[in-house]
Amino acid sequence: MKHVAILGSTGSVGTSALDVVSAHSEKLCVVGLAAGENVERFSDQVEKFKPSAIAMATLGALTSVQSRLQGADIEVKSASFGTEGLIAVATHPDADVVLCASSGTAALEAVLMAIDAGKTIALANKEVLVMAGGLVTELARQRQVSILPVDSEHSAIHQCLQGQADADIKRLILTASGGPFRGQSGTALQDVTPEDALRHPTWTMGAKITIDSATMMNKGLEVIEAHWLFGVQPNNIDVLIHPQSIVHSMVEFRDGSVIAQLGLADMRLPIQYALSYPERWDGHLPGLDLARCETLQFQDPDHTHFPCLKLAYRALKGKAELSIALNAANEVAVEAFLSGELAFLHIPTIIERTLDARDLMSPMNIRTVGDVREIDRWARDFSNEQVTELESKQ
Amino acid sequence: MKHVAILGSTGSVGTSALDVVSAHSEKLCVVGLAAGENVERFSDQVEKFKPSAIAMATLGALTSVQSRLQGADIEVKSASFGTEGLIAVATHPDADVVLCASSGTAALEAVLMAIDAGKTIALANKEVLVMAGGLVTELARQRQVSILPVDSEHSAIHQCLQGQADADIKRLILTASGGPFRGQSGTALQDVTPEDALRHPTWTMGAKITIDSATMMNKGLEVIEAHWLFGVQPNNIDVLIHPQSIVHSMVEFRDGSVIAQLGLADMRLPIQYALSYPERWDGHLPGLDLARCETLQFQDPDHTHFPCLKLAYRALKGKAELSIALNAANEVAVEAFLSGELAFLHIPTIIERTLDARDLMSPMNIRTVGDVREIDRWARDFSNEQVTELESKQ
Repeated sequence: MKHVAILGSTGSVGTSALDVVSAHSEKLCVVGLAAGENVERFSDQVEKFKPSAIAMATLGALTSVQSRLQGADIEVKSASFGTEGLIAVATHPDADVVLCASSGTAALEAVLMAIDAGKTIALANKEVLVMAGGLVTELARQRQVSILPVDSEHSAIHQCLQGQADADIKRLILTASGGPFRGQSGTALQDVTPEDALRHPTWTMGAKITIDSATMMNKGLEVIEAHWLFGVQPNNIDVLIHPQSIVHSMVEFRDGSVIAQLGLADMRLPIQYALSYPERWDGHLPGLDLARCETLQFQDPDHTHFPCLKLAYRALKGKAELSIALNAANEVAVEAFLSGELAFLHIPTIIERTLDARDLMSPMNIRTVGDVREIDRWARDFSNEQVTELESKQ
Repeated sequence: MKHVAILGSTGSVGTSALDVVSAHSEKLCVVGLAAGENVERFSDQVEKFKPSAIAMATLGALTSVQSRLQGADIEVKSASFGTEGLIAVATHPDADVVLCASSGTAALEAVLMAIDAGKTIALANKEVLVMAGGLVTELARQRQVSILPVDSEHSAIHQCLQGQADADIKRLILTASGGPFRGQSGTALQDVTPEDALRHPTWTMGAKITIDSATMMNKGLEVIEAHWLFGVQPNNIDVLIHPQSIVHSMVEFRDGSVIAQLGLADMRLPIQYALSYPERWDGHLPGLDLARCETLQFQDPDHTHFPCLKLAYRALKGKAELSIALNAANEVAVEAFLSGELAFLHIPTIIERTLDARDLMSPMNIRTVGDVREIDRWARDFSNEQVTELESKQ
């Protein structure tokens, strides 16, 4: 029996993970759940999975959950909130695996503490590696802790690398659906609304990641993650547009052979893989029937209309601060776009200006989460100013 | 340095294998070469690769080779012919790997002797496993000898299974180009000539295997081979038509995840994989550029117009003699077709009649190559009679 703690249990990945736990209740049990402020869904989850530790983002949300659960036959041993709450769940003494499925940067400290406590990490959160890839992978190496990817692309690469030598990798090929605006011209992209951008063709996901998919920054963040997860240099990580999202990613080896992982576009597959690894467990979804599929197509990314991908490569190849700045500026820009304050095509503008500014600053040695947060704060402030400036011109 | 002996060095796979040896001369050297009767090409190969043991199919061919090589600075320590010659090359004391690339059944004894002598087998010959899969794999198990596939499909599956547990395999998915007549109707197939059938869309191969590809018996024989190579039951081996021959085969695992191997349609890739395994060595061919590829398509096989595939499943699911009878009847029928004596659509008729007849006979316990040869002889005689009978009716 594997004991699982889940950070971000009410989000898209978190709820899918609990589906996986339900489907494999003889092999998985939940010891801790942490979520943001979705009191209703969280209370239902606690009632169903009976974790011994729970955490919410705020005291208010936690209090609401506790009052909802009064009368239910549930014994919660530890209830907390905020960063302390995340850490308590992530370092729960009984947890074997910590699934980090919360979005944003809140979980960074908790993930580092979980690694320090020797927990296996199933990682669905992009920011952890994009912001602190060096810190996280170095600590994982020291503690001999595995970081198992939950993103479908990185899960695919992890599967393709089984039984293969790292030295034989020629390049990783991350596939990308291309998002809802694949093939569209710059003029058409000028008038994109948040509603347009939230309609993703193949994956159902949260709002932030769906916009990232529309700008292709999602793929850029994945390139950075892939670098840290698999120790492959940026020049050996390629992106290939594959609109059908059937081939989840590939690895080309030194002899020219390419190994690919294929499957349905359902997050429960990579989640289950991460929770079952090194085993595989029976699936509960229909199998992939390639004879019933559309044809599979592949094309190079359109860097002209989707410049975010190149910005991510630039950040990854530059000094370590740039990835933090990229991520922060992107979050600020996406939020401004979603609230109607920023045009779709200005998202990369904000990010580029932030990278340019950071590139002019003296390099910094990043040793602690505090250092990461300092750069993150600077980049948020700077990019917020840029949003205001661009708005005032419109 | 790996020492390689090659059975069938002048054929399509044999010459490609020698290309691989030339490209990796720091890692591979040739200690023995055996071929049929292509004196000119064989003499050139001996001059270039300087094996210490050589063999030809006949004394006449061997004598011609020796007279051609007179005066050249070549020291051949062992020269022989026929089955004895194949065995001498296959059991060469210095050989680490024996690449069996001869076609037909001649190499059966030699491969068994090589396994008995502890040589790793790189197997490109279909008949060895189709006729004697039980004998060969049991001896390999006893001697702890690896049988590495050279066929692109089985090489793909071997690669997809690296680092995976056998118990996790749900099914093997062998891809098939569908051959030159994919999508054609029964009426069109009636008038197929050997010239039509020899035009294969994606692979350049010998005549027998090209006709097998046109009837899809090639894929049937591969299903039987896959059963013996990977220990997977016939019901868990599927065939999928994939006209582009880019995905060389796939494995579906119990969790629904599919791992595929992709590459150019060039035999040097699987040959090099078998010779380098468990390592991978640098490739000398252009890489696979999926963005420049056509779209990839998949469809179920057309069993109505290509009944040979079902006949192979029938043989594999039936008693052991049926696979031997299937292979023998197919060889007889293809030869009759190539010499203009048999219509294309009668190839499966001959095979089916032979299976029907063998099914009526009492089962036989196959313990030796002699037993295999006895059934093979019976099936050749029977199917030859059937060819004569069908011809007389035309």
